Amino acid sequence: MSIEVSSGWPARAGDVFDPNCPSRGVLEHVTSRWGVLVLAALAERELRFGALHRRIGGVSQKMLAQTLRALAADGFVERTVVPAAPPQVSYRLTDTGEQVAAHVAGLVGWIERQLPRILAAREAAL
Amino acid sequence: MSIEVSSGWPARAGDVFDPNCPSRGVLEHVTSRWGVLVLAALAERELRFGALHRRIGGVSQKMLAQTLRALAADGFVERTVVPAAPPQVSYRLTDTGEQVAAHVAGLVGWIERQLPRILAAREAAL
Repeated sequence: MSIEVSSGWPARAGDVFDPNCPSRGVLEHVTSRWGVLVLAALAERELRFGALHRRIGGVSQKMLAQTLRALAADGFVERTVVPAAPPQVSYRLTDTGEQVAAHVAGLVGWIERQLPRILAAREAAL
Repeated sequence: MSIEVSSGWPARAGDVFDPNCPSRGVLEHVTSRWGVLVLAALAERELRFGALHRRIGGVSQKMLAQTLRALAADGFVERTVVPAAPPQVSYRLTDTGEQVAAHVAGLVGWIERQLPRILAAREAAL
């Protein structure tokens, strides 16, 4: 007997190779153009919206807000209102978010370190 | 003195937070909807085009070919022609590809295992 959740997917591990598995949607939030960078930025520290916007070069406020909403809905990011005048909103990783962000930051760090080798391979292939 | 490659980026580690850094493009190939799944599938074993197409539910042949070309240009995937009638094309990870795919497979495996908890968090947030 499996417990169903309203996604229609039984309460068991996902299979990203199955196009109907909801893990596909989670993977897409985490690996979206801006999702990766939001997770990598928040892995460094909690940030207010404006600071996050400045940290991630090229993101629009609209796309940043949309990305944060998707990551919050999956339980990876939580928003807290900082009492100030005017009130400010701050974003940080949840415990689950810390885990997924560690994987993302590992991937991002590897790409940054390997970039010279990757660019050299591209040149050689031309 | 830094050695320039034709991308205009000096031969040093990348910075994905900089919109002009070519690491952004590599990150996008690796984390694209189908790039993630191609790397995860090839992390399991070398596959022919048709087998890869069947393994990755929902991908079109056109998108699969385009994804493989991008990953090959970055030096992550190599194609070999299997002598047969008709000749068949097989895809496998390079040494660098094995490294990046290990990060991607770690992320994918984490999401698959955590899916029940993530879906439960989504439900609780409704």
